Amino acid sequence: MKTIAFVLYPGLTPLDLVGPLQVLSNLGFLRPEFETVVVAEHPGVVQSDSTLRIEPDRTFDEVPEPFGIVVPGGLVPTLRALTDETLLGWLRRVSSGADVVGSVCTGALILGAAGLLDGRRATTHWAFLDLLEVFGAVPVSQRWVADGPVFTAAGVSAGIDAALHLAATLAGEDVARQIQFGIEYDPHPPLGPLNWDDAPRQEWAAARARAVAAATDGDSELARRLGV
Amino acid sequence: MKTIAFVLYPGLTPLDLVGPLQVLSNLGFLRPEFETVVVAEHPGVVQSDSTLRIEPDRTFDEVPEPFGIVVPGGLVPTLRALTDETLLGWLRRVSSGADVVGSVCTGALILGAAGLLDGRRATTHWAFLDLLEVFGAVPVSQRWVADGPVFTAAGVSAGIDAALHLAATLAGEDVARQIQFGIEYDPHPPLGPLNWDDAPRQEWAAARARAVAAATDGDSELARRLGV
Repeated sequence: MKTIAFVLYPGLTPLDLVGPLQVLSNLGFLRPEFETVVVAEHPGVVQSDSTLRIEPDRTFDEVPEPFGIVVPGGLVPTLRALTDETLLGWLRRVSSGADVVGSVCTGALILGAAGLLDGRRATTHWAFLDLLEVFGAVPVSQRWVADGPVFTAAGVSAGIDAALHLAATLAGEDVARQIQFGIEYDPHPPLGPLNWDDAPRQEWAAARARAVAAATDGDSELARRLGV
Repeated sequence: MKTIAFVLYPGLTPLDLVGPLQVLSNLGFLRPEFETVVVAEHPGVVQSDSTLRIEPDRTFDEVPEPFGIVVPGGLVPTLRALTDETLLGWLRRVSSGADVVGSVCTGALILGAAGLLDGRRATTHWAFLDLLEVFGAVPVSQRWVADGPVFTAAGVSAGIDAALHLAATLAGEDVARQIQFGIEYDPHPPLGPLNWDDAPRQEWAAARARAVAAATDGDSELARRLGV
């Protein structure tokens, strides 16, 4: 069984986890050698950064040899997770034997803090892209980036695209297309695609500064790692 | 407070719920008069149709006057829910006072079973579209359909598009665009948009027949309602 483990931690952004989980769960329906699990440090329900609460399937210790790992992102809680040695330690241990090491949104920063992006091309949420350099990664402004076993997706919803790409890589384009029909992924953003000239860069720079300040408050190690 | 209630029931498809929940939670961050809640018949964790388990915030009785309702879909469990009088009764009671009554994917069938689609234009997952006629609805093959207070989204991922449209309607296009940048919703399906000439119609007709057979087994009332 090829187990793809989705990492659950308090305060994550739910669509970061559920978008690719939906795609790769459907992969498991079509190709039963793949299974998805939700893993967390402890048993018990975890609050996301919205009203949604999720219960993990297994603890980190119960998933010592996953085939794949996907780390979702978020804001302040994700920055705080950059010094969570339990999470980082598990990622370091299991990633060396994993075929797929992935992230969505600012989950890439967690991969970076675990030392898994050193020298690799990677992406993350657009408003955090340059922070990847802190961890020795080469930031790339793309919907998703695959570099060896490591794939990183851009912000939140990009995990769906990245997971479909991963499904095509793991099981072929026909299977990926079946999944795409199954979840009717034929997107039509009602206001059209993003026009990056209109990106609210100032607002997000301020939001990021506030998030970094809140996360590093009382955590000098995190401040050191982020270079602030 | 304008409360948008996401209906949680056993066996639903998680992205149906979490896609629009993500969009409308972000609406709540930007416009705090909106809040999202996850409601279910009972307290306690609910298993989706994949490995994901979700804990509701409130029971149906605790949300007597929501501003909006969103009903996710699924396969056999969603068909079984078409005779769940507790769920249908709550939907009938609260929908008359709600400004927004919505569904994603086959959640439209639940709205239909509650009598909320009679004479209305509506959509659902492409493989179930004609079933809407059983409930007096007029099936429309669109990404989402708004008919008065009722909006219905196509399969699974369409809930994201529909929720962005709803956010634009409730709070204006600028807010919807901010949400779109926040979740970096600039989709690029790796295999391109769906080519409907390639849709696996036979496979899905068979899957639907199996789902209907499984759901109506021992439930003559459901068989009667579905006309099978």
